[in-house]
Amino acid sequence: MFDYDFPLNINDLLYRARDLFSKREVVTRYPEGVHRYTYGDFYGRVCQLAHALDQLGLKKGEKVGSFAWNTFRHLELYFALPCTERILHTVNIRIPQEHFVHTINKAEDRFLFVDEDLVPIIERVQDRLETVEGYIVMSPSGRLPQTSLRSVYDYEELLAGQDEDYPFPEFIDEKTTALMCFTSATTGLPKGVEYTHRGVVLHTLAISLPDAANMSEKMTLLLVVPMFHVLSWGCPFACTMVGAKQVFPGPQPTPGDLARLIQDERVTHTAGVPTVWLALLDEIKLGKYDFSSLQEVLVGGSAPPRSLMEAYEEHGIPMVHAYGMTEAYPVVLVSRLKSYLEDLSREEQYYYRMKQGLLMPLLRGKVVGESGREVAHDGKELGELWLRGPWIARGYYREEEKTRETFGDGWYHTGDVVSIDQEGYIQIADRTKDLIKSGGEWISSVELENAIMAHPAVREAVVIAASHPKWNERPLACAVLKEGEDPRGKKKEIKEMLSQKFPSWWLPDDVVFVEEIPKTSVGKFDKKELRKKFGDYYMGK
Amino acid sequence: MFDYDFPLNINDLLYRARDLFSKREVVTRYPEGVHRYTYGDFYGRVCQLAHALDQLGLKKGEKVGSFAWNTFRHLELYFALPCTERILHTVNIRIPQEHFVHTINKAEDRFLFVDEDLVPIIERVQDRLETVEGYIVMSPSGRLPQTSLRSVYDYEELLAGQDEDYPFPEFIDEKTTALMCFTSATTGLPKGVEYTHRGVVLHTLAISLPDAANMSEKMTLLLVVPMFHVLSWGCPFACTMVGAKQVFPGPQPTPGDLARLIQDERVTHTAGVPTVWLALLDEIKLGKYDFSSLQEVLVGGSAPPRSLMEAYEEHGIPMVHAYGMTEAYPVVLVSRLKSYLEDLSREEQYYYRMKQGLLMPLLRGKVVGESGREVAHDGKELGELWLRGPWIARGYYREEEKTRETFGDGWYHTGDVVSIDQEGYIQIADRTKDLIKSGGEWISSVELENAIMAHPAVREAVVIAASHPKWNERPLACAVLKEGEDPRGKKKEIKEMLSQKFPSWWLPDDVVFVEEIPKTSVGKFDKKELRKKFGDYYMGK
Repeated sequence: MFDYDFPLNINDLLYRARDLFSKREVVTRYPEGVHRYTYGDFYGRVCQLAHALDQLGLKKGEKVGSFAWNTFRHLELYFALPCTERILHTVNIRIPQEHFVHTINKAEDRFLFVDEDLVPIIERVQDRLETVEGYIVMSPSGRLPQTSLRSVYDYEELLAGQDEDYPFPEFIDEKTTALMCFTSATTGLPKGVEYTHRGVVLHTLAISLPDAANMSEKMTLLLVVPMFHVLSWGCPFACTMVGAKQVFPGPQPTPGDLARLIQDERVTHTAGVPTVWLALLDEIKLGKYDFSSLQEVLVGGSAPPRSLMEAYEEHGIPMVHAYGMTEAYPVVLVSRLKSYLEDLSREEQYYYRMKQGLLMPLLRGKVVGESGREVAHDGKELGELWLRGPWIARGYYREEEKTRETFGDGWYHTGDVVSIDQEGYIQIADRTKDLIKSGGEWISSVELENAIMAHPAVREAVVIAASHPKWNERPLACAVLKEGEDPRGKKKEIKEMLSQKFPSWWLPDDVVFVEEIPKTSVGKFDKKELRKKFGDYYMGK
Repeated sequence: MFDYDFPLNINDLLYRARDLFSKREVVTRYPEGVHRYTYGDFYGRVCQLAHALDQLGLKKGEKVGSFAWNTFRHLELYFALPCTERILHTVNIRIPQEHFVHTINKAEDRFLFVDEDLVPIIERVQDRLETVEGYIVMSPSGRLPQTSLRSVYDYEELLAGQDEDYPFPEFIDEKTTALMCFTSATTGLPKGVEYTHRGVVLHTLAISLPDAANMSEKMTLLLVVPMFHVLSWGCPFACTMVGAKQVFPGPQPTPGDLARLIQDERVTHTAGVPTVWLALLDEIKLGKYDFSSLQEVLVGGSAPPRSLMEAYEEHGIPMVHAYGMTEAYPVVLVSRLKSYLEDLSREEQYYYRMKQGLLMPLLRGKVVGESGREVAHDGKELGELWLRGPWIARGYYREEEKTRETFGDGWYHTGDVVSIDQEGYIQIADRTKDLIKSGGEWISSVELENAIMAHPAVREAVVIAASHPKWNERPLACAVLKEGEDPRGKKKEIKEMLSQKFPSWWLPDDVVFVEEIPKTSVGKFDKKELRKKFGDYYMGK
C-alpha cells in the first residue's frame, strides 16, 4: 500500500464537518419560516437518508434525480448519494419541460426527489418519465401534499426513526461517478456530464484557495446560485469541508428575501449571476436592510456590467468575477487583481477586473485562433478557449458524436471566444455562435453590450447578430431603459458614446428599446429569443 | 479518456508560475549580497538545469542529492528533478556525519549538489559515498572553488548556454516518486520516505487553504525552515503555485540577517521552528529593524512556549501553530481559532491556540489509548495519534520491518502521544519515548516545560525522564536562565509555580540550571543528549 492508494472521496468532506464543525449552522429560508440546524444534525440526517435509500432498494451506481431549490434537504442529497456510491443528478428546474424530461430519461433516474411547490410541474410529465419508479416529496411541513404522483413518499417520513449513524464504505474508488449535471443547452438537447469523487474533491480544494473563492470556517455564505445549476458552483462541498456557515434561500426567493437573509444571518459572502445582483441593488439602495456584514460578492454565469460592479463598490461591497461551465465542475477562472496591479489607477484596475480572470491551479488552457495556432497574449487577438485538467470533462454522457466534436483531441473546446493579455487574464468576447460576422470580420457583442450598459439611462442591453443583405450580419442593439427614462434622444446618445470607443464598422446600425431582455434558465441573457424576434430587422431596409 | 486520467503533476505548479507570475520575485540572501530574479527567469533556469541533467546522463527514476541551504538554486533543483521524472533527495546537512552518509548511500544518489561553503563537509566523507559519481558545486560567485572532490562540476557552468525551454513530458504518472526525505532519527539511523507527484500536489493545495497557511499571490514568504527539513514544510511548492514572492535566507543566516530581510523585502509571512523565533525576538525588541510588514509567523517542529507567542503578539505579530512530520509531506495540523472561539476570553483562546490544531482536509486521524480504543474527546485523556490520508506515507524506503511496525495495519502510528478536545483540537503531550512513566503513570514533559518557560527568568527549559530507584522514572527539569539572571532562589520559585498547576506527583524532583539546551539538527530540544548527561541524576540519591 502507498499513500496514493488512499482515494479522494467526498465522504472525507462530510466527515470533516461532523468531526470539527458540528456546532456550525446550516440555515434555510422557507416561506413558512427559517429552518436552522448544525453540521452535527446534518450528519445524522445524511445517515438517516442513506438508510432510507437502502430501504428503497437503490443499488450502487444507480441514479436519483433532484428537482429542488437550495435547501438543507438538497444538501443532504448532495452527500447521502455519493457517499454511498450512488449518483445524484441535479435536474435543472428552469429549462423547458421537454429538456428536463430528456435529462431524467437519459440519466435513467430511478427516483426523483421533488420540492413540494414543484410537484405540479412533475405531475404534468410523470407519464413521460421512463425510468422513475417513485417520487419523494420534500415538504417544509413534513406532510405529504395531495398529489397525482404515483409511488410517492414523504421525505421526512422516510427519514423518521432511521439510525443517525451509517456504515459508509471505508473507501470508494475515486474514479466513481458521484454526481451528474446537464448543460443548459442553447442549441439542441442538454448534454450530460459525469462528476467523479476525485474531480469534486480536487475542484473543492481549488475553489477554496485564497485567490479563488477564499473559503474559510469564518465565512457565512449565502448560496444564491442554484444547486441545480452546476452544483451551486461547488460551494456546498467547499463550505462543508471548511465548516463555513451555509445559508440557503429556499423556494422562489425574491430580492427582499435575499436582503433579509443577508441582514439576519450576518452573511459575509454570496455567489450568483449578475441579474440577481442587479435586482438586489435596488434593495441595497432602499436602505431598508443592513448589508454591513457583506464582504464580497462572487459573480459568474455571465459578465457583470461595469456599472453594476461600480454600484456595489460604492456600497463597500467588492464583486469578484468568476467563469466556468458544466463541463468543468464548473470553475475555471477567477478574477482577482495581482498584488502589483493594485498600484494601478482605478481605470486600469477595471481593465483587469472586468475580465474573467486567471486560470485556476492545475488547469491547462490555450487560446486557439482560426489558423489553429495560439493567439498572441496581447488582450486583443481572439481565439477559442481550450481546456484540460483534473476537473475538466473529457466527454458527454452517452453522446459519442458530440464527445468527438468537442473533446476529440484530448482538449475540451469550450466554444467561447476569448482574448488573453500579457498578465494571463482571460476575457470572454463571445460564444462562437454569438459572434457577429460582418463582411468577413468578427465583432464582439459582449464588448458592445458592456459599453451600452454604461449609459446612465440603460438598465440592460444585448447586441445580437441580425441578418443583413449586404454584410451578411450586422449588430443590432436591444436595450431596456431604467424606469421613468424617456427613450427620446437616447438612441443618438448611445450611438455617439459607442463611436468614441469602437471602430465605425463595429457600431450597431440601430438600437431598439424593449420592455425586458428574456433570460435563460440560469439567468443569462437569452439571445436566441431576441434573434427570433429581431433577426430579420435589417432585411426589409 | 476521462478527467481522472489527467494526473496530478508538480509540473503544473511550475507552469503556473511561468504563465501567470513571471514578474513576481524570488530573492536569496548570500553573504556576498542579495540575489534577485523573477519566476520568468526561474523557469528558464529550471529548463537549463533539466538539459544539464540530461547531459550528465541521469535517467528517469534516478536520484540526486542536495546538500544545501535555502537558495534559488535549491528551488531550481526542487522542480528540475521531479518535472523530468527524476528524484530529488534533500539531504539534511545538520544530522551527524554517519547519518547523512547513510541516507545518501541508502537513496543511491548518483550526483550530489553541494553549496560551496558545505564542500569541506562532503570532502571529508566522499570516500564513503558508495553511489555518487559526481559533485556539482553551487557557488554564489559562479566559480568552482579549490576542492579535493573528484568529478566535480560548477552549477553555473553546467547551465550556461543551455536552452531556456525544455520539452517536459506531457504527463507524468502521478504515482511517480518526485522527492525523498529521511527522518531526523532520534533513535537508530534515519528512515527514508518517498514523496509522489500526487501527494505533493495534494499537500500543496491543502496547506494553501485559508484556514491552513493561507497562501496567496499577495504574500511575501521568508522561508526560514530549511529546504533540507521536510521540503521547508512544502512552502516552496505552494509559493510557486500561487505566485507568492519567496525570500530565501541563504547560507548560515543570523537573526540579524533574518531581521534585515524582513525589513528590506517587506516580508508578510514567515515559517520556522520556535528556537529561531526566540532568537529573532531579541532583534524585534532592539527595534533596529522595521517589522511592520510582518502579518503572521507560522511555527512548527516543536511547540512554542506561550511566553514566546505572547511576546510576538505584543509586537502585533500573531503566531500560528502547525504540526507535522517527515511521514506526512509534512503538514497534518494547523491551529487557527474557529470563528465562535474568537468570542472567548484571551485566556480561553490560549487554551486552544497553544494546541497543535485541527486535522487538515482529507486526513483521517484517531487517538488510540493503551487499551487499543479511541480516547475520549475531553482534552485530557492521552493516546497515540494514528493517521491515514492521501499524503500520509504507508511505509519506509526499503525498511520492511520498520514499515511493518509503524504502518502495519494501514494506519501510520506517529509515536506522538496526544489529547483531543471536544472542538477537535489536538495537543501533543509527548513523543511516546519522551513520556515519563512514574510509578506506572504517565507524566507529560511538554506541559511541564511550557509551564517552566512561563517563568520570567527562564529562557528555555526541558523536562526529561531520569531513572529513579523507587519510581522507575521521575521528571528532572533542565533550565537555561536569561542573561544576567541569578540562579539563587529560582529553583524554589519554579517548584512553587508548578505546584499550583500540577498534581504533586508530576512535579520534577529537582531543577538543574544548564548553560544551554542542546538542539537537534532541525532545532528541536535534544532530550537524548540531556538524558545521556542527567539520566542517572537521581540514582545516587
